[in-house]
Amino acid sequence: MRSFTARRKVEFADTDMGGIVHFSKYFVYMETAEHEFLEALGSNVVLWREGRQISWPRVSVSCEYGSPMRFGDQLEIQLQVRRKGTKSMTYDFRFVRDGEELAKGSMTSVCCEVGSDGLRAIPIPDEIAGQIEED
Amino acid sequence: MRSFTARRKVEFADTDMGGIVHFSKYFVYMETAEHEFLEALGSNVVLWREGRQISWPRVSVSCEYGSPMRFGDQLEIQLQVRRKGTKSMTYDFRFVRDGEELAKGSMTSVCCEVGSDGLRAIPIPDEIAGQIEED
Amino acid sequence: MRSFTARRKVEFADTDMGGIVHFSKYFVYMETAEHEFLEALGSNVVLWREGRQISWPRVSVSCEYGSPMRFGDQLEIQLQVRRKGTKSMTYDFRFVRDGEELAKGSMTSVCCEVGSDGLRAIPIPDEIAGQIEED
Amino acid sequence: MRSFTARRKVEFADTDMGGIVHFSKYFVYMETAEHEFLEALGSNVVLWREGRQISWPRVSVSCEYGSPMRFGDQLEIQLQVRRKGTKSMTYDFRFVRDGEELAKGSMTSVCCEVGSDGLRAIPIPDEIAGQIEED
Repeated sequence: MRSFTARRKVEFADTDMGGIVHFSKYFVYMETAEHEFLEALGSNVVLWREGRQISWPRVSVSCEYGSPMRFGDQLEIQLQVRRKGTKSMTYDFRFVRDGEELAKGSMTSVCCEVGSDGLRAIPIPDEIAGQIEED
Repeated sequence: MRSFTARRKVEFADTDMGGIVHFSKYFVYMETAEHEFLEALGSNVVLWREGRQISWPRVSVSCEYGSPMRFGDQLEIQLQVRRKGTKSMTYDFRFVRDGEELAKGSMTSVCCEVGSDGLRAIPIPDEIAGQIEED
Repeated sequence: MRSFTARRKVEFADTDMGGIVHFSKYFVYMETAEHEFLEALGSNVVLWREGRQISWPRVSVSCEYGSPMRFGDQLEIQLQVRRKGTKSMTYDFRFVRDGEELAKGSMTSVCCEVGSDGLRAIPIPDEIAGQIEED
Repeated sequence: MRSFTARRKVEFADTDMGGIVHFSKYFVYMETAEHEFLEALGSNVVLWREGRQISWPRVSVSCEYGSPMRFGDQLEIQLQVRRKGTKSMTYDFRFVRDGEELAKGSMTSVCCEVGSDGLRAIPIPDEIAGQIEED
């Protein structure tokens, strides 16, 4: 699997007084698309492995804004795997409405084990890594 | 202590496309005022006591909206202790701008110990309870 | 129509450090259920009528919290019309997961015309009011 | 003026179930720092000029996350003007706690006039541009 499309409708609470979706919400939309992608692989963002929790904190994100998104818009959030590292994933995202690209973003997440003393980067478990292909 | 006034300025991200503060954000404002009140008592919302974490989950909240609040407004969030129970606190809140009441709300929080098996209501620790008076 | 059920899945960004859905987000869930109810009537929250925008600002809301909601939970938000006034609607909400009620809330919204000088309460348009029944 | 430092304290509602500030909130913190910078110049994010509203929508943003930020943290959000264009501003941001850099970001905002037909990029008004220096 190297790509995935999430669908969502813009909610009222996502807008700001400019009448458009607040620019910070694009990252919530990307995150949820990432989670749905991992779920489609049979995984989960917060999964347990041999008694230890695995999580995917972000190390870098970006977004370029073209046309605004508005309340009620039906969006496609198109995820593509740009890079599969040993311990991290980099995704590209396109925000599309009726075939038109409105914005694009990217996100790098690191596979981490959650311990009592914080987060520690670990190799992506084989059952996940084996299912992901770079684009 | 039976009352406390928190001050904050409305941020852009708190508004919605109606041009006013989204009605759900009033509860964030109340929560932060509650936290500042507990801090003013020398306590904290997430405090540790004999190795166990204490937290204050909400059991009920309400809000009545009068005049809207807008970006840049300088607000007072006035907290008053309506009831101090053995294990819970009930607060009333007034949202005030330039002396005018814009909205009012209420919140009941229960003092809980956080264990590995979830939350358990406990009596409010004496060092907190002893400092709080009902209005 | 006197009731409506919205479905949604809890997103990561809806949670707080307590590991559960932040209590303010319940109001976003109620609002979206209200919007979907109005849409099911063929209306919209932000509808235009003879060149004038109609909106439904809230005058009062409340919520009682029972069991917490967590990341990934599949929820039903069950809306019921408690009261249909001339200019306002009052709804009751139940938050249900796998048949279990986790929380319940209520919301009163006033039908308003948006003018250049602010909001003005107006009678609910017949094409909407005619389709809504009290429970 | 070429730099500005905003101060804020992490609120409970800014955290997620990972126990840290949700990565999308960093952009809210940057935005508020930008607004405080413009205010310090005597301007405003939503200012009126000869009867027309001026706004600063974002065209691109990014953030790199180092150490996490937690509930109650006292933060400095350090803004620096990286580039002053004719119609746009690019800022760099550093998130600092007790002298330690936790994260850094950037943001490019375009000066726009808000008309009935949408947004139109315009030169930054002289009274603002004249006060801003590139770093």
